[in-house]
Amino acid sequence: MGGLPRVNEVSDFVGRIRDVTGPGAHPLHEPVLGEVEIDFLSKCIRSGFVSSVGEFVTTFEEQLASFLECNAVVAMSSGTAALHIALLTMGVRPGDEVLIPSATFVATANAVAYCGAVPHFIDIEWETLGVDAHALDTHLNAVAVRKGDEVVNRNSGRRISLCVPMHTFGHAVNMSALHDVVREWGIPIVEDAAEALGSSFQNRKCGTFGLVGVFSFNGNKTITTGGGGALATNDRSIAERARHLSTTAKLKHRWDFIHDEIGFNYRMPNVNAALGCAQLTRLKESLQSKRRLFDRYDEIFKGSNLGAMFSEPPDSQSNYWLQTFILHREKSNYRDEILDRCNSDGLALRPLWAPLHTLRPFKNLPRAEMPVTMDLSLRAINLPSSAGIA
Amino acid sequence: MGGLPRVNEVSDFVGRIRDVTGPGAHPLHEPVLGEVEIDFLSKCIRSGFVSSVGEFVTTFEEQLASFLECNAVVAMSSGTAALHIALLTMGVRPGDEVLIPSATFVATANAVAYCGAVPHFIDIEWETLGVDAHALDTHLNAVAVRKGDEVVNRNSGRRISLCVPMHTFGHAVNMSALHDVVREWGIPIVEDAAEALGSSFQNRKCGTFGLVGVFSFNGNKTITTGGGGALATNDRSIAERARHLSTTAKLKHRWDFIHDEIGFNYRMPNVNAALGCAQLTRLKESLQSKRRLFDRYDEIFKGSNLGAMFSEPPDSQSNYWLQTFILHREKSNYRDEILDRCNSDGLALRPLWAPLHTLRPFKNLPRAEMPVTMDLSLRAINLPSSAGIA
Repeated sequence: MGGLPRVNEVSDFVGRIRDVTGPGAHPLHEPVLGEVEIDFLSKCIRSGFVSSVGEFVTTFEEQLASFLECNAVVAMSSGTAALHIALLTMGVRPGDEVLIPSATFVATANAVAYCGAVPHFIDIEWETLGVDAHALDTHLNAVAVRKGDEVVNRNSGRRISLCVPMHTFGHAVNMSALHDVVREWGIPIVEDAAEALGSSFQNRKCGTFGLVGVFSFNGNKTITTGGGGALATNDRSIAERARHLSTTAKLKHRWDFIHDEIGFNYRMPNVNAALGCAQLTRLKESLQSKRRLFDRYDEIFKGSNLGAMFSEPPDSQSNYWLQTFILHREKSNYRDEILDRCNSDGLALRPLWAPLHTLRPFKNLPRAEMPVTMDLSLRAINLPSSAGIA
Repeated sequence: MGGLPRVNEVSDFVGRIRDVTGPGAHPLHEPVLGEVEIDFLSKCIRSGFVSSVGEFVTTFEEQLASFLECNAVVAMSSGTAALHIALLTMGVRPGDEVLIPSATFVATANAVAYCGAVPHFIDIEWETLGVDAHALDTHLNAVAVRKGDEVVNRNSGRRISLCVPMHTFGHAVNMSALHDVVREWGIPIVEDAAEALGSSFQNRKCGTFGLVGVFSFNGNKTITTGGGGALATNDRSIAERARHLSTTAKLKHRWDFIHDEIGFNYRMPNVNAALGCAQLTRLKESLQSKRRLFDRYDEIFKGSNLGAMFSEPPDSQSNYWLQTFILHREKSNYRDEILDRCNSDGLALRPLWAPLHTLRPFKNLPRAEMPVTMDLSLRAINLPSSAGIA
C-alpha cells in the first residue's frame, strides 16, 4: 500500500474502523445501560433517599473497595472533586508545586489550581504513555533541591509537595520505576486513576499504589454514575478526612451546624450511586468487551501503513478505556485529515488533549522538557471505544 | 398555662408538633418521590444519556426559567457550585470582600472563600430573617469608603465587590430596601435563593432580582435532583460564561481539547436533571402543601406560651421551605431541652445554623454588629417541614 495516494490511505483507515464499528454514528465512549440501571434507580426512588445519604452510596463504596482490594473508598460528585480532596488530604498548600503530566485531561491541573498550588509539568514515556520516571529523576536533579524534609524548586523557590501520575487511556504507569524515584526524593504520590478503573500493574489495581488514588465515573468512563468520582485509600484516617472535607467539614452533632474548616459539597448523591451499583454489575463483562475490542482493532490495523494500535505496557493489564491508534512519525501530518473525515462521518475520533503546558492558563509554569508529550500529541488518535461495540 | 412547670411546657410543645406530624420519625425535610420520578429516570436510562449532555438538562433549565420568568438557567451539580460560579461571573477576585449574612448555611461563606475572597458578615432583620438593608447602610457608612468606581473597606483596604443576600428558610429578603442601599453604594447583588424556590417578593420570584440568583436542589430542598443547583439570570452573556466556566472552560471544537482558563466540572448530569424534571411536575402542589403545613403549625401553636411560628414577611410570598418556631426571648433557655427531647423522639428539629462569624474558619473576619443574628440563633427552632406531612 506504500504507493497509495493519500486520499486512499485515509479512506482505507476509515474503512478499517467501519469494519469494527459497523455503520452509524459512534461516540468516543458511551455507557452500556439497561434494565439493571432502571431497577436500581427505581429502588433508590422507593427508598426515599436520593441525596447525600443513602444505602447505595455505602454499597457503591464497599463494592468498589472490594474490587480494588483497598481499605476505603469515598464516593464524590466528580473525578475532579475527588482529586481536589485527595490533594488536600495529602497536605498540598497554596504556593506549592505539584508534579503532573502535561499529557492529561485538564482536570488534573485544575485540581492543583483549586488548592492554590502550581502545576509543574513533566513528560511521559512511549512505553506506558504515563509519567517517565527516569526523565522525572533527571529533571528533578536539574531543578530541585532538598531543604530539610522538603523538596524545593530552586528556580521558583516553591515547595514540590506531591507527584500525580495519570494512567493515560487506562494504561498503567510504571509504578515500580516511579516509586523508586519519588521515594528517593521523598515526594508522595496521588494516583490519578480517573481513566483506569480495572487496570493493574504487577497484579495490583491502579489507584491503590499511592496513599490515595482517584477515579472518575463521568458518562464517558468504563462505568458511569452520570457524574461522579471516588477517592480510594488504604489509610482510614485519610478516608475519614476526605469524608469530612467533602461534606462541608461539618462536625457530627445531633442538631448543631458546626463546621471547623472551609469544606466542600462534593459527596456523591444516592441516586448517582444507585446508577453506579448497577454499572458495577457490568464491570467485569465491560472489561472483557473492551479487550475484545482492542483485539479487533489491533487485528484489523495490522498491515496499515499509517500506524498501529497502542497495546498494554509490560507487567500490566489495561482496561483499554480508550483505543488508541498511533500514527507513524512520518504520517503525523495525516492526523487532522483523519479526524476531520471521521468526525464528519459520525465517528467521534479524538486526538490527545492539547498538552496542558501549551494552554493559556498553564503557560509559563515550571516544566520539564516535553519531547514525548509533543510527539504523542501529533500522533495519537483515539477510536470509538464503547464496550458495546465488541 | 403560664404556671405550668417547665417539663410540662416542653411536653405540651412536643404534643402540639405530634398533633401535626402524627407518630413516627420525621426528618427535617424529605422529598416527595414516586412513580413520576421512576418514569423519568427510566426514560433517561433508555435515552443512553446520563451524563453532562442530555435533553433532560435542557428541559429542566427551560422549565425552571419559565417558572422563574427569567431568561436563562444553568443547571449545576450543587447549590454551592452554582454560587461559586455566580461569584466568578460577577467578577469577584482574590482579596475582595463579599457581604454575606452571618445567619446562613456555611456554603455561602465557602463559595466566597473558593474565590480567594473574604466573607464580610452582616446582620439580618426580624421582619424577614434576611439582610437588614438599613443596618447594612449604617455599617457601610462606618467602615466603607468609595474610591473611584470601587467601594473599599477602610479597615482592611480590601475592595467590597458584591453583596449576597440569602432568603432564609424561604422567606424573601426585602429586596426593595436592599436595592436602594446597594444601588447607592454601587455594589452588585447575587441572590442566594438556595432555600427560596417558589418564594417571591412584590410578585417577582426570588432569585431573579440581582443580575444572578442561585438555587439548591439538595435532597432536603423543596424539589430535589439528588444533589444539584442552578444559576438563574436575565443576562444571556452571564449564562454563557457560567456554562463555559462550569464545563472546564473548554472551547467549542469538533475534536480539540482547548481550555482558555481555569474551569470547573460543575454541570448537572442528565440523570439528576431527569429527577429534577419529575420533581418540577410536583412543585406547585408541594408549595401548596407547605402553606397548608404552615397554617396547621400556626393554628396549633396559637396560645403556646413558649413562642410562635414565623410567618411570611409583608409584600412577599414564602415557599415555607422550613417551618420555624421562634421562642419568646425569655424562653430561649428552653431551646436545647426542646431540641434534645424532640430529636430523641424521632422529630428532627433543628436550630439556626451556628452564626458563621462564630465558626473557627470565619472568626476574626470583617463584620457588622450582630444583634438580630445572635438573638435569632438562640430562639429559632425549625420543625419537620416536608410537603408530605400536610
